[in-house]
Order: sequence, then structure tokens, then C-alpha cells
Amino acid sequence: MYFYQIKPHLTTRSLFPENQESPIHFLRAGITPVRYFYKRNHFSYPAITNENFHLQINGKVTNPNTFSFNELINFPSKTLDIVLECSGNKRSKFEPKVYGEQWAQGAISRGRWRGVPLRTLLYLLGITKLAKEVVFESFDNGKIPSMNKEVSFIRSLPIEKALHPDTLIAYEYNGMPLPFKHGFPLRLIVPQWYGMASVKWLKRITVIDHNYEGPFQTDDYVYYPKEIEPFPVTSMKLNSTILQPLDFSIIEKATHTISGIAWTGEGEIKGVQVSFDNGISWNDAIVYPKQKYAWTNWSIEWSPIEKGEYVIQSKAIDSNDRAQPDEPLWNKKGYGYNAISKINVKVE
Amino acid sequence: MYFYQIKPHLTTRSLFPENQESPIHFLRAGITPVRYFYKRNHFSYPAITNENFHLQINGKVTNPNTFSFNELINFPSKTLDIVLECSGNKRSKFEPKVYGEQWAQGAISRGRWRGVPLRTLLYLLGITKLAKEVVFESFDNGKIPSMNKEVSFIRSLPIEKALHPDTLIAYEYNGMPLPFKHGFPLRLIVPQWYGMASVKWLKRITVIDHNYEGPFQTDDYVYYPKEIEPFPVTSMKLNSTILQPLDFSIIEKATHTISGIAWTGEGEIKGVQVSFDNGISWNDAIVYPKQKYAWTNWSIEWSPIEKGEYVIQSKAIDSNDRAQPDEPLWNKKGYGYNAISKINVKVE
Repeated sequence: MYFYQIKPHLTTRSLFPENQESPIHFLRAGITPVRYFYKRNHFSYPAITNENFHLQINGKVTNPNTFSFNELINFPSKTLDIVLECSGNKRSKFEPKVYGEQWAQGAISRGRWRGVPLRTLLYLLGITKLAKEVVFESFDNGKIPSMNKEVSFIRSLPIEKALHPDTLIAYEYNGMPLPFKHGFPLRLIVPQWYGMASVKWLKRITVIDHNYEGPFQTDDYVYYPKEIEPFPVTSMKLNSTILQPLDFSIIEKATHTISGIAWTGEGEIKGVQVSFDNGISWNDAIVYPKQKYAWTNWSIEWSPIEKGEYVIQSKAIDSNDRAQPDEPLWNKKGYGYNAISKINVKVE
Repeated sequence: MYFYQIKPHLTTRSLFPENQESPIHFLRAGITPVRYFYKRNHFSYPAITNENFHLQINGKVTNPNTFSFNELINFPSKTLDIVLECSGNKRSKFEPKVYGEQWAQGAISRGRWRGVPLRTLLYLLGITKLAKEVVFESFDNGKIPSMNKEVSFIRSLPIEKALHPDTLIAYEYNGMPLPFKHGFPLRLIVPQWYGMASVKWLKRITVIDHNYEGPFQTDDYVYYPKEIEPFPVTSMKLNSTILQPLDFSIIEKATHTISGIAWTGEGEIKGVQVSFDNGISWNDAIVYPKQKYAWTNWSIEWSPIEKGEYVIQSKAIDSNDRAQPDEPLWNKKGYGYNAISKINVKVE
């Protein structure tokens, strides 16, 4: 038999703006190559000019400054393996269904980011006691349906998170310059938070003495649950996904490796439990060496004794002994789906 | 703003065998380019050797023969615009859900096929009165879960369909040689039937005097409904799909063009009706000039008066005044889903 090139592509959710997710059931490796890195945009891609290679930092700092790209890459850097997940990942699973991009399970990536810790720059410029939040403005902008004017993508972080030693001004992904579509030349990387916090195409950083308000912070990226008060989307929830086999696939009566990933933005993954009998019994999966910000790979062998239909479930457990819930927190905009992962298979 | 290349890819359902569907909500044109032509395979791709450029025709014919590729392309040819649709297209919409590839709506294509009418060859070789069916064997083969031996992809047609003047031995798609992954060098094309009938990588044609039985005809590609007897999958059902806007998208309060396609394997498309009020009232869409075997494009302008959530539905009507049903015929293997097409949109 000849070899023909067979490889999956990103799955398109919308073209303008370009939103595409990973064909996650084929993501075996620990590091997501650029071609399978999900794309989540609010606007068209910004132009790249000389201005993009300069980063202004101003506001409540003693010495406001503009750093050139070359200056930034000469500061001591940090390299971290980090999961980025869109807060709308798995949105299509909510019942009742919610509006917005109908992400399946692939709006997630794991990659190696290199950059300067933001705190290095803020301390250098002299952060003042008035500092309460840090605002990040991107070069991308456009109209949003609910507003009639052009807006830029802007979000803030609380000062504590901005000063966390692992919050980076990143300029490399997997050992290469950032890809154009993922924030080149400079992107904020906020480990443990959902991806909207990791502002791409960084233009300006402003330290402020109050709470920032803007459409991507007080309208979007807010949980609106049914019976509790709205609250902002911040860190990633404890979660897991079964990568193989595929949902509703027909498999042979043989020994199968059931495998997947687990991750969290709070604490660390301690274990993953898998059920083959509708949740009556749970088996510990083998979990691969863990890193703080990356996902954990897990797998378990399964030899079904009888032909028939099965539900396979995976449940991540974190270092605080919390488990993925049976039901997600339903919210109007469909963020943070993290119920126990389930697939159906038929053994023939 | 700079131009960056933005284009959708095929959406992968499985890699081995390679099954991928069109990102159909972006299919605007009448002719599906090869890169968006859905792929549906049962096995890995066959090798292409000298043997593939020869087509045996034997069985109940007076003068069995083997035609070379060069001989075949020198017969008078026919060029037809034809919809090919996988019989599992829209399988993921069945409730209760069924096993198998979870196709959304993109396992469909419309292209321009050129080839020799099969009847030209059969009449030339002298079809005998004993002829009841014609069997088509492909070069691709492999194991299937329910059997423990290697099988080839083989299917038959009733003699009447085999002798239909538009049943082709095709060697061109959209004016080019057939793509490798779609049957190169020779493929059967059966207009109006679901895609499984259009056997790829044709190896051998055998005229027989009985009903052919094989796994792709008496096990797969059979409707197993709940309360009626099983019956074979043959012609495409009356169907329509809304191409834009996207399901669960958020759109502006403005005038929108709602557009889609409609097709059938029995008769022709006469019209398409669209509802914006949960099926209470139906509006005639504009339907584009029709061709017998191709899909019909349709569109309708819509100006929602109020913000809110809407269900948009499309219903194709055929030349026999039949309409798409409210509910599909549920069947165990999930073939022929053709209920009225529905999407949800939110106007903001």
C-alpha cells in the first residue's frame, strides 16, 4: 500500500473572525504544534508595523517607558509549559444550549511559552502603592454586535496576578517566534486563567488605581448563572477530556487503551478516575508526570467482556481532593463547562 | 489591515480510515472544489499500479473484456453536475443518537463529473437476458470490526440503474483527472443515489443473474427502523440545509440573507420554504436555476423587527409536492436523515 498524506486540520467554527479548534481526538503529544493550536479571535487580524515591536507601559508607575522588542528579549526570560483554554471550550455541551461559537472540546492547547516576567518590567519602572489593576490593550479592534463603535480588545488583571512571577510578556512559542495568528510579536501569557486573559498583539500596558470596565470584562467573559449573581471568568476549572476512542464509535471486542488529558487552573491534577459502567465503579487511570501549568496525560487499559453499548466517563481529581462535577454550572454565555467527560462506544 | 490567508479546512471525523466532511456553512459556490470535497472511506487508500488503469467487465455478457484507461476515455463521454451525499450525512442529528461516524451536515458535495456511460460498455459487450444486477468491485480492502477476514468494497446495482444513460464510469472531476482520494483513475458515478453506490477505484464489473449479497449491502447501508422491516439504502432523500447564518450564532438587528441548498434523489426540487416563527408561517425562498442531479441554491432576505431568539427552518418541496418531514425516519445505523433543517439565532 502506498503512503498518502493523512492528517487532520483545525475545525472551523467561523471564518470572520477566524475561530478554529483542534481536532482534539488526534492530539497525542504533550506539545501542541502551531498547526493544531486553536484560534480564537474577536476581530480581524491586526496589521504588523514597526509600532507593534514597541510596548508602552504607563499609568501608576514612577517611570513610564516604552520597551522595544530587542530590549525585551534581552531581559532574563522564563520558559513554561502552559495550557491555554478558551473559556467557551465545550460550550456546545451545555443543556439548554447557549448562543455563541459552538466549540466542541478542542479550544485548548498546550505549548512552551518563553517571555519576560511582567513583574520584572513593573518593578523596574517602579510600581506605586496606588496600583490596583493592570490593563492590557491589544492591536486588534473592530465592531461588536452590541455596540456601534470600534473597540479594541482590552482586559485587565488584578495587581497580584500581574505581579505573579509566571505572568509573562511572551515572544516565543515552542522555541520559535510567536505565530502571527497567536499574538506576534508580543503576547501576554497568564498561566491558570482562561485564554481571554492572555491578550495577543500587545500594544500598551497601563497600571491603574481602580477597577477596569470594558466590554470584554463587564459584558463578555462574565458568568451569568441562573440563580446566583454574575461573576467574572478567571481561572480554568478542573476538567478532563477523553481523547480516544471517539464518541459514538464502534470498536472491536479487544483490549483498548482509553486515554485523555486532565487540567486545572487551581491547584494541580492529583488523579483521574474512569468508569465503564455508568459511574457505578471508578478505576484509577495512570497519570503521566505532572507539571504545574500543563495538562496531565492519562490512560487506562480496558477489555470489555461482552459486546454491547458502553458509556465511558473520566473524572479529574485535584490536589485539594475536589472532583469534576456531574453537572456543569449552566450560565447564559456558556463559559467554563467542566462536567465529567462522557463518551458512548459500541463493542462489536 | 494586512491580508492573512483565512480559509476553512475539512473537518476530520476519523483518520484511519480517513473520513472528513466539508465545512458546509462556507460552501457558497455551486461546484465543490476538491479541497472541500468530503472524504468517506472504509479502508486505507489502495495502491495505484498499472492494474488500476484496466477495467474488467465479465459475468453474464456475451463478450467479457478488459478496457484500458486510454480506451475508456476515447468512448463518447457525458459531463454531469451531480450531488454526492453520504447516506450517513446528518447522522449526529438523530435522537436517540446512533453509532457510527458523527457526521454533521457536510458529507455532501456538488461537482462536475465526466465519464463514459456504463450502458455504452455493457451494450458493446452484449448484455444477456439473464442479467439481473451489476456488481462493482473496488481496489480498496481491509478488515471490518464485525468480520475477521479481509474484504473488498463491493456493491451492486439493479440492472435498470446500471443501464441508466447517466450512470457513468467517471474519470474527471471538475475538468481534472479524478483526485486520488476520490477514486482515481476510475470511479462509478450513480446520480441520485447516496454516495456508497458510487464505487471508487473501480477494479472489476461483473454482471450477475441473482441478487448480490455482501457486507456493504446486506449489513451496512440498510435501514433498520424501529417498527418496519429493514430495507436497503438507495436514492437520496428530499433534503435541505441552511448554510448561513450558523446555528447558535449571534447576529445584528439588520437585514440578513438566509441561504442554503436543497436536493433530492427522486424527482426535482420545486421550491424551498423558510420559517422564522417556529413553523407557524412559511415564506417562499428564491431558488436558483435547477439542474436535475445538482443541488439547488436558495436564499431569502430576513429583517427581524425585534431583538430576541429565533428558530429558522427550511423545508424543501419536490416536483411531486412532497415536503421534507418534521421528523426523520429513525434507524439503527443512522442513514438518510432528512427532517426539516433548523437553526437557532439570537438577534442582538
